[in-house]
Amino acid sequence: MSAKQQQIKRIGVLTSGGDAPGMNAGIRAVVRASVYYKMTPLGIRHGYDGFINNEIHKMDAGSVKHIIHQGGTILKSARSMEFKTDKGMQKAWKNVQKHNLDAMVVIGGDGTFKGAMEFGKKFDFPIVGIPGTIDNDIYGTDFTVGFDTAVNTVVEAVDKIRDTATSHNRLFFVEVMGRDAGFIAMYSGIGAGAEEILIPEKDRGIEQLFESLERTSKRRKSSRLVVVAEGDKNGNVYDLEEQVKERFGDRYETKVTILGHVQRGGRPSCTDRVLASRLGVAAVEALKDGKRGVMVGVRNRKVEFTDLEQATKRNPEMDKELMRVANIISI
Amino acid sequence: MSAKQQQIKRIGVLTSGGDAPGMNAGIRAVVRASVYYKMTPLGIRHGYDGFINNEIHKMDAGSVKHIIHQGGTILKSARSMEFKTDKGMQKAWKNVQKHNLDAMVVIGGDGTFKGAMEFGKKFDFPIVGIPGTIDNDIYGTDFTVGFDTAVNTVVEAVDKIRDTATSHNRLFFVEVMGRDAGFIAMYSGIGAGAEEILIPEKDRGIEQLFESLERTSKRRKSSRLVVVAEGDKNGNVYDLEEQVKERFGDRYETKVTILGHVQRGGRPSCTDRVLASRLGVAAVEALKDGKRGVMVGVRNRKVEFTDLEQATKRNPEMDKELMRVANIISI
Amino acid sequence: MSAKQQQIKRIGVLTSGGDAPGMNAGIRAVVRASVYYKMTPLGIRHGYDGFINNEIHKMDAGSVKHIIHQGGTILKSARSMEFKTDKGMQKAWKNVQKHNLDAMVVIGGDGTFKGAMEFGKKFDFPIVGIPGTIDNDIYGTDFTVGFDTAVNTVVEAVDKIRDTATSHNRLFFVEVMGRDAGFIAMYSGIGAGAEEILIPEKDRGIEQLFESLERTSKRRKSSRLVVVAEGDKNGNVYDLEEQVKERFGDRYETKVTILGHVQRGGRPSCTDRVLASRLGVAAVEALKDGKRGVMVGVRNRKVEFTDLEQATKRNPEMDKELMRVANIISI
Amino acid sequence: MSAKQQQIKRIGVLTSGGDAPGMNAGIRAVVRASVYYKMTPLGIRHGYDGFINNEIHKMDAGSVKHIIHQGGTILKSARSMEFKTDKGMQKAWKNVQKHNLDAMVVIGGDGTFKGAMEFGKKFDFPIVGIPGTIDNDIYGTDFTVGFDTAVNTVVEAVDKIRDTATSHNRLFFVEVMGRDAGFIAMYSGIGAGAEEILIPEKDRGIEQLFESLERTSKRRKSSRLVVVAEGDKNGNVYDLEEQVKERFGDRYETKVTILGHVQRGGRPSCTDRVLASRLGVAAVEALKDGKRGVMVGVRNRKVEFTDLEQATKRNPEMDKELMRVANIISI
Repeated sequence: MSAKQQQIKRIGVLTSGGDAPGMNAGIRAVVRASVYYKMTPLGIRHGYDGFINNEIHKMDAGSVKHIIHQGGTILKSARSMEFKTDKGMQKAWKNVQKHNLDAMVVIGGDGTFKGAMEFGKKFDFPIVGIPGTIDNDIYGTDFTVGFDTAVNTVVEAVDKIRDTATSHNRLFFVEVMGRDAGFIAMYSGIGAGAEEILIPEKDRGIEQLFESLERTSKRRKSSRLVVVAEGDKNGNVYDLEEQVKERFGDRYETKVTILGHVQRGGRPSCTDRVLASRLGVAAVEALKDGKRGVMVGVRNRKVEFTDLEQATKRNPEMDKELMRVANIISI
Repeated sequence: MSAKQQQIKRIGVLTSGGDAPGMNAGIRAVVRASVYYKMTPLGIRHGYDGFINNEIHKMDAGSVKHIIHQGGTILKSARSMEFKTDKGMQKAWKNVQKHNLDAMVVIGGDGTFKGAMEFGKKFDFPIVGIPGTIDNDIYGTDFTVGFDTAVNTVVEAVDKIRDTATSHNRLFFVEVMGRDAGFIAMYSGIGAGAEEILIPEKDRGIEQLFESLERTSKRRKSSRLVVVAEGDKNGNVYDLEEQVKERFGDRYETKVTILGHVQRGGRPSCTDRVLASRLGVAAVEALKDGKRGVMVGVRNRKVEFTDLEQATKRNPEMDKELMRVANIISI
Repeated sequence: MSAKQQQIKRIGVLTSGGDAPGMNAGIRAVVRASVYYKMTPLGIRHGYDGFINNEIHKMDAGSVKHIIHQGGTILKSARSMEFKTDKGMQKAWKNVQKHNLDAMVVIGGDGTFKGAMEFGKKFDFPIVGIPGTIDNDIYGTDFTVGFDTAVNTVVEAVDKIRDTATSHNRLFFVEVMGRDAGFIAMYSGIGAGAEEILIPEKDRGIEQLFESLERTSKRRKSSRLVVVAEGDKNGNVYDLEEQVKERFGDRYETKVTILGHVQRGGRPSCTDRVLASRLGVAAVEALKDGKRGVMVGVRNRKVEFTDLEQATKRNPEMDKELMRVANIISI
Repeated sequence: MSAKQQQIKRIGVLTSGGDAPGMNAGIRAVVRASVYYKMTPLGIRHGYDGFINNEIHKMDAGSVKHIIHQGGTILKSARSMEFKTDKGMQKAWKNVQKHNLDAMVVIGGDGTFKGAMEFGKKFDFPIVGIPGTIDNDIYGTDFTVGFDTAVNTVVEAVDKIRDTATSHNRLFFVEVMGRDAGFIAMYSGIGAGAEEILIPEKDRGIEQLFESLERTSKRRKSSRLVVVAEGDKNGNVYDLEEQVKERFGDRYETKVTILGHVQRGGRPSCTDRVLASRLGVAAVEALKDGKRGVMVGVRNRKVEFTDLEQATKRNPEMDKELMRVANIISI
């Protein structure tokens, strides 16, 4: 191991998959920690595509100046098909040799980690992952980089929609991102004071929605907001609107908003910047200490490591207590 | 006339049609100006519906405390079908008599003013209008209350989309509100640095878009944003995406976002608060001075009056110079 | 115990001490959870002052409608001197009897909990506390309600200051709140990418600052931001500026900003809304279950209870790892 | 003149004096309009200092990509003492010759324009100015670039302070920028619903404040906000607090916040981006058309030109009607 440790002189860093606010803070921390520990950081642009195509350049403390507050990723991102092929991986491996890379940090989600795991095994190459995705669907960390910003973005948007909903006594369906996970919907739904929250993790969402509409249509509540996870099993948000119309006729004036890609962007929240900074430093220190094939996360306020294999296979569990709380306070 | 003037002791105020940020600042100014001039302000809830259904209550300086920064309208709004009928108007007139209303201020857009005009003529009742709509489609004022907030909301959202667009080299279509007018699209498009802006006022929007995509697909620009007014004549934003795909195949990875109702809500900008405050005071002073059947607006930084008839019939002109500027700086 | 449990029918709720964003979300959750469990919630205005002066009124699900996104506290707050006297407490006790209160939830910080503890013991009255303060200086919870919003507010402000600092190559000192604790400074400092962070928990802050300025004045960095906790032991921020000027002469153009009370206000972040919602529900359920004299907090994503005595006596520890991270990434 | 016109091939652009949000949008428009008209834009860094020290570099459409939303100025700014000397100007003139500059656009305020005027006359060199300052104290334009963003920043901050002020029934003094002009205070004061606004343009500010406090201390208003322009003649905001304490004893719990440099930064508002874009294009077109020694502004929604001499000598007038409105709605 100690032999290995001495080899880590040059560290590559890339962002891959869907971009998330805070990725830049992560890049910055990886770069600065590398410099701090007398290593040379190299930026790889456009994710695994750039890894394959040799879009690799040296970085230093100055190249990450004034980026901590910027959304997106200065290294750009991509979903690479080619990296799933042997040929693609071989090309990337040539670039590793060309640039004398000793290790790599990858920032992204599920797909990113799968690629990293495979590449790492194939070439016995040390890689550490940082969970960067707004969806919070990665096992091994309390929260992923980007989640906190995304739920704040959603809550801000829904606050605005509430203004107009209240002015008109309307029933609004707001679809939010999250892929197969309901975390964004659950947190932002509670935060926005939504009357109902529909998530893939919950079975009888639509029945519950009907019952609650049944109850409240009698009470004449001034407006109703339903936050719907994109992965919800009752079909998409327009179907949902249809079903409500069928059942309740014109008792409700319904409206639909699909928040879309605004959820991916924006200045990262303080929480995301701090989290990404911690994880960036931890990733470099992990490589320095001979760790590989792991993801760094923060659980219970402490840095923890999870095998990339586990990180990609297991799903984080939706907090039952939150569902209960959501139910109680939307009374 | 002077006889009339002395009669104005009790002023009703309502908001009608689509709500707009700043309406509360307008209500606040109407109420406080009434108090200032020793008149009694009465709030009418739910627009003309509440006018018909007698949802009318006394207000004072305290009832508009801490509302200047709130989106929506504390008096709620509605689009009333009943007020378009003689029967509806007669009912409303009874309420005028019941509450001894001497005059009324209505805050809203086109439809609101048409109703006001008719009712005012029918019963010889003094009404003054304040232009409150995010669409800026009212003749007789440089800007309507709500427009400035809406374009800021759009620009903020598109800034976020730009983060993710840039990270992925994508072509984004963003549909914004504005009904038949392209003001929101034009201002927010320039403000957001959109590569193209499609508005109903411009003929060859889509041809121009194709040409510009033709040019830039050669230059490999990292991301492209097209802001599309909902009233644009090239069909809706999904049709547009289709046409681009047909023409350019997969040369572009396209995405669509329809901003929707977030554009109606949110804390009003300073400009909208100041504008609404000025117009609210001006409306009360106009009634006090015997004016009626007019809309108050601000043109060239001065309060001006426009006949409600003109305000509803004529359209404000899209500024040619802005189109030119948009064209030059998106080079 | 079970005898006690049956007695809890009427629950009072108050906010006391410095206000914090998210308090309204806490009030809302307490009120709705009470209704959910068939109890009657009563609001007590102006903290312990209103408790003494009988500013107590019934609430229901509707009275907390549309407040989750509002800063401040709809129940108002105060620091009561009278409640520290026996006479004051006796008066308050009379009000407990007058309104048949069976228990109470108090939202606030240190001082609030001390009052609660004493009153609870004196009259054998069940009280549960919710940690509501921007300072994060309460033992027994990972974070206090309001902290997350405050650090986001600071980071947003410092981002703006960075714009102008960078444009002019200036050295900015920004003083932030936090009383004797450096949490706001540490988190917002990391989040804002501050070059130095001075907190009461760190000894040689100013020497370190001098050394770092020494180093960087040679490297000609374009701007420098120093975030200073108000409780820092090197004197206030103006003294600090003086010391730097003495040492470095006019090598730096220095500027000072004291952020002040903007840090207390503003729409709460999603995190603060969710946290306050959880704690509000947990507080009511704790009382229902016979708990008393405890504070509810969230540690490691789970609700936990801490004796009010401990909560007020012990201080939460500043995370050493964060200090280390701050040091590494400001290289 | 037409001979001159043909000479304009290379245009320099700089920002000088206090930075203002929207300057980047102005730079972007100058650069892109130059490219559009087949001229070569050159950026001059650090204002007149860089003009003297030859910090001059070619720019193109790509060098101003993704800057329209950034606060500050990518060209940096400075207040140059050396440019006030003949020697400094001579050095700058050498750089004009070295880079074959045919004309220059300067973005800034008063001081910037004075330097431009003198330099232009001395060397018969075509210069056009763009008013960029948050203070709005330039004659010849309805609004300066940066003003709208600044008042929005102030209003947002005061909204937050209002949250806490209301929670505690406090009297807050908030000092805002503006140099000798009260525009920021007047607009943000109205926008924030301030109870009093103290500006240099108004004589009896403090007497009026005393009277209004006298009145309201009887009415027990829940909170009071006084917005004070930094140029106000009643001394600084702390003196003001003292005077109020002397007069009213402890009838009010007073607090002071000096907003400071946050007012200079931040993402520019849509209005500022559009204004700066128009003026940047107009400045280049003006030079192309042979104009020189003028400032471009927008008055009554139209581009207008004002002699730099007039722009610096005359002051824009505070709108009397606004003062009246402020007075009426703070009742």
